[in-house]
Amino acid sequence: MRFYGFFRSSSSYRCRIAFNLKGIRPEFVPINLRRNEHRDAAFLAKNPQGLLPALEVDGAVLTQSLAIIEWLDETQPGLRLLPEDATKRAQVRAFAQIIACEIHPLQNLRVLNFVKENYDQDRNGADDWARHWIAEGLTACEAIAARHVRNGTFTFGDQPGLADICLIPQMFSADRFGLDTALYPRLREIRAACEALPAFADAHPARQPDVQ
Amino acid sequence: MRFYGFFRSSSSYRCRIAFNLKGIRPEFVPINLRRNEHRDAAFLAKNPQGLLPALEVDGAVLTQSLAIIEWLDETQPGLRLLPEDATKRAQVRAFAQIIACEIHPLQNLRVLNFVKENYDQDRNGADDWARHWIAEGLTACEAIAARHVRNGTFTFGDQPGLADICLIPQMFSADRFGLDTALYPRLREIRAACEALPAFADAHPARQPDVQ
Repeated sequence: MRFYGFFRSSSSYRCRIAFNLKGIRPEFVPINLRRNEHRDAAFLAKNPQGLLPALEVDGAVLTQSLAIIEWLDETQPGLRLLPEDATKRAQVRAFAQIIACEIHPLQNLRVLNFVKENYDQDRNGADDWARHWIAEGLTACEAIAARHVRNGTFTFGDQPGLADICLIPQMFSADRFGLDTALYPRLREIRAACEALPAFADAHPARQPDVQ
Repeated sequence: MRFYGFFRSSSSYRCRIAFNLKGIRPEFVPINLRRNEHRDAAFLAKNPQGLLPALEVDGAVLTQSLAIIEWLDETQPGLRLLPEDATKRAQVRAFAQIIACEIHPLQNLRVLNFVKENYDQDRNGADDWARHWIAEGLTACEAIAARHVRNGTFTFGDQPGLADICLIPQMFSADRFGLDTALYPRLREIRAACEALPAFADAHPARQPDVQ
């Protein structure tokens, strides 16, 4: 199993947590997004879309972090990252998708660059854009997490799973854009519980071999 | 089963196709996004996030279209919307997520309104923004679909499934924003095959009881 990622990429960060929770150590191939290595012929030969993260396994190349994590959960032993019950699984996926479909796509590098270049925004203007969408999404996440607070330490119970895997990298991004997360006390509690676990701590961008 | 949606909402459209492919007819409750009915107390009591679509089933409220569709596939008989094989399932989910995580979030109403209000863009400027991101995403979809062309009539085989369920509403949006889809010949073939099926044709926004 070979994993193509980048230390700061949120979706790579999600996959690293999932690997750690499953106790899997894929070979890591760093792809430097800042140097446009995802557009190099060598990587495009593996993944013609030039997207990170990618997981190469038995000749197939899997992409999109949520699809990779569901594949891991379906094929690899260890801690279950999604609940067995179909209704609970739908609720966990919905939480993950608030982050993956409603927050993260609006604050990634290509979108921030477009806002700067086309709408005459400086770094601070682009950061305002990012903070706006992160705040809107985390407000929804906080409301959901607060309703489930009696059910456990993590977002949906006493074991970490897909919801937490998406939440922790998104809170890291919130910090990076200077968003005050004091408005999300339940999310901060969950974060503290997650970051006490080596699976989450070891997946942090600052601890990766390609950190800059 | 009670479905809360809006005729023009892409993610409601995805769910309608999935219901039809499964042969399910949930009770339909129209929520008019233009009149902000998703912010009314009656709907917020069901879904505190005020998001569409939502599916109420046995007292639980499921949200996020992809989570709803996976739940349907896991719990309801009829045509399988995702493949049995884990690797193929990961590829179908990745295709769906290119649309759900990389295209649709950038061209929905709240983002277009933000671009207009904050960056002094008129309707045409906001449409340029939408066309840019739809074109980027559909280019990736076309490349993937073209690689799978020998495997069947639809995006991933001889039966329609989750990939097609996401693709057809996205192509409807492409038309709505005036994007020329001639650059995506394989996607157009798939669309023609899908729209020949009543499950897709009957889910079209123009055929919904709440159309305006």
